[in-house]
Amino acid sequence: MKDGYLDFANSPMGAKLVNALGLPKPLPLERYKPGQPVVQGTVLIGGSADSQILEALATVMKSIGAQTLAHERVPQWIATANKVGLTTGRWGTQGQAGEKVKALVFDATGLSDSTQSDALYWFFHDTARSVLPSGRVVIIGRPPEECSSPRKATVQRSLEGLSRSLGKELKKGATAQLVYVSEGAEANLESTLRFLLSARSTYVSAQVVRVGKPVSDVVAPADWAKPLAGKKVLVTGASRGIGAAIAEVMARDGADVIALDVPQAQEGLNEVAKKLGGKAIALDIGAADAPQKLVDAARADGGWDVIVHNAGITRDKTIANMKEHLWQLVVNVNLSTQERINDALVESGALKAGGRIVCVSSISGLAGNMGQTNYAVSKAGVVGMVQFNAPIYAQKGITINAVAPGFIETAMTAAIPFAIREAGRRMNSMSQGGQPVDVAEAIGWFASPASSGLTGNTIRVCGQSLIGA
Amino acid sequence: MKDGYLDFANSPMGAKLVNALGLPKPLPLERYKPGQPVVQGTVLIGGSADSQILEALATVMKSIGAQTLAHERVPQWIATANKVGLTTGRWGTQGQAGEKVKALVFDATGLSDSTQSDALYWFFHDTARSVLPSGRVVIIGRPPEECSSPRKATVQRSLEGLSRSLGKELKKGATAQLVYVSEGAEANLESTLRFLLSARSTYVSAQVVRVGKPVSDVVAPADWAKPLAGKKVLVTGASRGIGAAIAEVMARDGADVIALDVPQAQEGLNEVAKKLGGKAIALDIGAADAPQKLVDAARADGGWDVIVHNAGITRDKTIANMKEHLWQLVVNVNLSTQERINDALVESGALKAGGRIVCVSSISGLAGNMGQTNYAVSKAGVVGMVQFNAPIYAQKGITINAVAPGFIETAMTAAIPFAIREAGRRMNSMSQGGQPVDVAEAIGWFASPASSGLTGNTIRVCGQSLIGA
Repeated sequence: MKDGYLDFANSPMGAKLVNALGLPKPLPLERYKPGQPVVQGTVLIGGSADSQILEALATVMKSIGAQTLAHERVPQWIATANKVGLTTGRWGTQGQAGEKVKALVFDATGLSDSTQSDALYWFFHDTARSVLPSGRVVIIGRPPEECSSPRKATVQRSLEGLSRSLGKELKKGATAQLVYVSEGAEANLESTLRFLLSARSTYVSAQVVRVGKPVSDVVAPADWAKPLAGKKVLVTGASRGIGAAIAEVMARDGADVIALDVPQAQEGLNEVAKKLGGKAIALDIGAADAPQKLVDAARADGGWDVIVHNAGITRDKTIANMKEHLWQLVVNVNLSTQERINDALVESGALKAGGRIVCVSSISGLAGNMGQTNYAVSKAGVVGMVQFNAPIYAQKGITINAVAPGFIETAMTAAIPFAIREAGRRMNSMSQGGQPVDVAEAIGWFASPASSGLTGNTIRVCGQSLIGA
Repeated sequence: MKDGYLDFANSPMGAKLVNALGLPKPLPLERYKPGQPVVQGTVLIGGSADSQILEALATVMKSIGAQTLAHERVPQWIATANKVGLTTGRWGTQGQAGEKVKALVFDATGLSDSTQSDALYWFFHDTARSVLPSGRVVIIGRPPEECSSPRKATVQRSLEGLSRSLGKELKKGATAQLVYVSEGAEANLESTLRFLLSARSTYVSAQVVRVGKPVSDVVAPADWAKPLAGKKVLVTGASRGIGAAIAEVMARDGADVIALDVPQAQEGLNEVAKKLGGKAIALDIGAADAPQKLVDAARADGGWDVIVHNAGITRDKTIANMKEHLWQLVVNVNLSTQERINDALVESGALKAGGRIVCVSSISGLAGNMGQTNYAVSKAGVVGMVQFNAPIYAQKGITINAVAPGFIETAMTAAIPFAIREAGRRMNSMSQGGQPVDVAEAIGWFASPASSGLTGNTIRVCGQSLIGA
């Protein structure tokens, strides 16, 4: 779906009108193109005296080939960076701002009491104006629930108020995230920082990510441009829209794609599979025998590595006007079916050890929605399915995570009446809808073999939508 | 602050215009008046075959003097109700709706798999149209994190999608909540159901409440109209606005109020104290010696029972434009000070065993806000302070909870520019702002001696604001 207003607001005439009327100013967002560096500019590092993960951070910065600079209050960055062979410099002098940067990364792991929060102030006060368009802010803290004292847990929890506020303040397509990394899990940060600092995460903002101990070995891809090389990836609902975009991104990242959709969508499905050099499976996943059929298909393939549960349906009515079979249909396809398939694939070993399950929830599942009781129940259930199966699947080295899309430009959202569509599109920190590829990139992040420290997360791809932000 | 639009939309002329233009239709909300019954109408009970807490529910319904009716799919309610001497009847016949009711209560504790979710459908499909204005919906489930299987945890987590969607569908001032009650904690439900089913919770909607094992004996008040009789309650920031409303509600509920504010507010403070027959303390709580002064004052009183941390300040600027002392000031008053005071009062025993701490967070702390990095950090920190001190204070029989106000009609919100104020006011399921008394009533619920099963909760008083709903 084309966003005509976005084009208009960025035309010479339109920009003048938009400014004069005080209308939202969506900026064309940068999106990942194969071959480009992770960060298209400099990374400015901040922290406090007791920052704990600077060494791990330096290793990642070296690996991604970043240019870094140190804020004056984290002078120890220079020596830490030099130790891993990362050349770096100082940003600004004597309270004067330095050059414009593409990303701000603040190591907040050292904060152990709210009285130390001024470290946050000094860094972001000095640097907020120096963030380039489509810039990235990542604050790294410790999971509050794992902190040794309530005071430390409290100041770590307070970081969420900062990252969410910065997401709203920075504008110009900049995003702000909070990453909680467990003690001892610092070596698992790379896949997450590669995602959050790059143009792959362009429509992800104000999210809280937890990076924990890996459920299996952390495998750095031989080629970070093809992290899914040699991996067999099932994508359900792959014949069009977001599903087709997911299949495409998986293939771009090196995967052998198995594209699945209902038999009625066979034509589109075959097209997608052919284009990507993958396989097609036409199957109604809601059927009782679907889990066994999928186990058989996976075994015939020598096992699958990644399952992406993208297939989902809506049947909107207020509950008073809803027919019973439409409740059942939606909850079955969007939730119960996925529970059955996951359990069958994991228990049978058809999803290999070290495997990945990525589910699709929705902003409606998090915030509720009028006319979507059935859909919201199913998508809130996905959050629970992910959270509560994570420790069980971890025993087999398998992770399970979800993405929750906000307003994404698809045929489905194009059918929404104009006024409601415009509200959904503009009421977020990007003042525009996301693209199917934005959801696909987030799924690629979870699917990566390097993401074994990520499980049980539900991350929104919503441009920091006002709704349930 | 007066909401002129609310009055206009409910005038004969205004109502016509509002209808013709499709404008929001705020309804004057019912608010609690001393002496009135908990539920002003009938309570319709729903559930599934395996509902586990009907007996506890019947005991509460009997205690609050409710009239109840049973939905056809929970026929066992009749016998359960009769056992405790609660007369009840059947609602509707042969698929025909019965009378209009004031409240719907659904016992979802029996749901152990998403395939059973149609029990939710049948009850709410049949009854959604029969809810009276300012009606109440309460869904009771089990805490997902305590469920014995991922399937049960998942369907219990899915309930949140339903309650939040119903909050948006029901309109006419109706609210919908989800209460997770731990196994064995059923006897602690009464204070929560009294709050959520009554007009005291008029601006609380789409919230998730956890009722757990009590941190000390559950003490049913001798007189539920005066649950705080004989209790010494400190209210900070009590000279005006929300603080004055809190002091008033505490006094109405029987408390001996100690009203505190800064020395500059002495006049208003004295007025409040005099009106309520309470004491006044003029003290800057941000000062280093404030915790000790409060410990001394509490000891001189023979110990305090309840601390309400209402005092809070805003100093809004984007972080790039913010002066350092305004960051420090806000974080200190709104967060660090409260940490110090709580620890001092709890460790010294000046806050008595069985005591209550109630804090004030904010929607800005949950969702972030432009121009409020300092405030959002402090208020997100309050959520952490409550969550992570709860298990520690529980060892002394003390609970700690927070309320997070959304748009409340005060002198502060009256100063917001018109367009932004109108957006904040209307963008919630009530299409209007809340009143200070609405925040106060929620605090009264947490402060009650009967609420010893509630700790670590942060509950929004926001009319299901779209922002971060």
